[in-house]
Amino acid sequence: MPKISLPRYDDIVLAANRLEGFIKHTPVLTCSEIDEALGCEVFFKCENLQKSGAFKYRGASNALLSLSEQQRQTGVFTVSSGNHGAALGYAGARLGISVTVAVPYNAPAIKRNNIEASGASIVTIEPGMEARERFAAERAQTGETFIPPYDHPDIIAGQGTATLELLKQVEDLDTVVAPLGGGGLLAGACLAAQGLEVYGAEPMLANDGFESLRTGVRQPAKPPRSICDGLLTQLGEYNFEILKRHVSAVLVVEDKDTKAAMELIWQRLKIIIEPSSAITLAALKQERSRFAGKRVGIVLSGGNIAAEPSQPLKV
Amino acid sequence: MPKISLPRYDDIVLAANRLEGFIKHTPVLTCSEIDEALGCEVFFKCENLQKSGAFKYRGASNALLSLSEQQRQTGVFTVSSGNHGAALGYAGARLGISVTVAVPYNAPAIKRNNIEASGASIVTIEPGMEARERFAAERAQTGETFIPPYDHPDIIAGQGTATLELLKQVEDLDTVVAPLGGGGLLAGACLAAQGLEVYGAEPMLANDGFESLRTGVRQPAKPPRSICDGLLTQLGEYNFEILKRHVSAVLVVEDKDTKAAMELIWQRLKIIIEPSSAITLAALKQERSRFAGKRVGIVLSGGNIAAEPSQPLKV
Repeated sequence: MPKISLPRYDDIVLAANRLEGFIKHTPVLTCSEIDEALGCEVFFKCENLQKSGAFKYRGASNALLSLSEQQRQTGVFTVSSGNHGAALGYAGARLGISVTVAVPYNAPAIKRNNIEASGASIVTIEPGMEARERFAAERAQTGETFIPPYDHPDIIAGQGTATLELLKQVEDLDTVVAPLGGGGLLAGACLAAQGLEVYGAEPMLANDGFESLRTGVRQPAKPPRSICDGLLTQLGEYNFEILKRHVSAVLVVEDKDTKAAMELIWQRLKIIIEPSSAITLAALKQERSRFAGKRVGIVLSGGNIAAEPSQPLKV
Repeated sequence: MPKISLPRYDDIVLAANRLEGFIKHTPVLTCSEIDEALGCEVFFKCENLQKSGAFKYRGASNALLSLSEQQRQTGVFTVSSGNHGAALGYAGARLGISVTVAVPYNAPAIKRNNIEASGASIVTIEPGMEARERFAAERAQTGETFIPPYDHPDIIAGQGTATLELLKQVEDLDTVVAPLGGGGLLAGACLAAQGLEVYGAEPMLANDGFESLRTGVRQPAKPPRSICDGLLTQLGEYNFEILKRHVSAVLVVEDKDTKAAMELIWQRLKIIIEPSSAITLAALKQERSRFAGKRVGIVLSGGNIAAEPSQPLKV
């Protein structure tokens, strides 16, 4: 691995300034029933209500706003089965930057549709790292800039603004909990919330992040399996370096608990979140004593899941 | 009808002060895609994110906080098939006031469950005005105070705080649109937003409010039919008097348009709202030219509807 220059707290602050007026300041919700049930105070940072339906809009926008004029004119590309692709598409459309997204054919339909709706051009590829890397290598020949989904300082700094904003909205937080997939959101949280405890939550059958930290060596993504379709990617290099230095722990959660947490949030908070977001609340419930009496911010990462009434409406 | 003393703007301000720290200040959301599609700027006041899942918590809390110490100790009762009952239950639980709710046996299960979860005692009654009135007359013998769902100055003043808050959150609104059932929310909006246009939105087959204003005489609720289960009640007396003086118009909406608006809000805003809330957006779409170029606040009244993923999650 080449020596890399890691982003720092100041980069998050710069990103927040750059993003002012471009992103949404998402609300923070609370629920007294959940607090009573868990024995702690939970502050839900609603990035599902962010433009494009996910926190990914922060990092994608920060990356695009940091390009040179020539890079903007040539355009950008990425590889994404979901929220990063749509976020990049929406941010690109707003800035007049051409965006191409390579999407594996097995991506969830709602996420593919969201990428299409953003105005991005879609190229369908095979699933897996090999096809991603082949596409990226070929596409780079066009001169377009590659905007990776998580393994990049500008992306991490952008995602960190979600936590920076949360800390401004809620006083005296003790802890931040964020989902762990590629590690952009969690690494950003670590940088933004230095001095606080920061936990990652990762699916039990997609726990390459946990294993990487345990062994000290970045682990390949075993063929991962989880309802958290946003958390199946391998932990990035930059992200790993930041987590090694700053994360308090990664909590590993079973899908059945994530599913129950998602249902609870839909029902009590009246917001639509995807499973990858709900894993944070499941982690809190699982590690009750760890969080007892604390003020815990959790980052609800996205809401791109199709929902409908349990009883169809007859009109 | 006895001469009644109508609440005024000042009563909304007093209610807002009384409710400070007791209710949630709900967020206002926007969606650029919806704005572009409708040709106006829409500000969604998210009372579905209010405690109890509906704006009703404002009025119920204002009524309970206005009781004498003796009234508090004796307890209160109401008749409700839905959100008012739960709101009163939650507010009563917080204040240590005993709450009994008469619920028609055909009330939606989720709303009955929400009333139960609030801690209120439930009495099951027949549907319809006759059974409601019989219950209220009998129950009054106990000395408990009746807290009506909408036809009361304290209730109207409490509901008006939703619009008062919206006007503080969003500058230079031109118009407020609220659903019309019993008229508590809409009458409160009229009082809070004096000087602005205020519209009601009412289901086509439950349009007693529209007919009352057209004829100048409060009309009985014909057996109403709508997916908007929160809007089936008859317009109240106080409410009618206020609407006669202040409302710009009542817009009548077909259920199929309300259903489409609800689906759009779930999908784009990532929040769960019930049909009674979605009728406001449907009204905007229907009367496109009326709202063109304006800054329109719409009150999303509640989110008490059971929801699930369109594709079941397999764990």
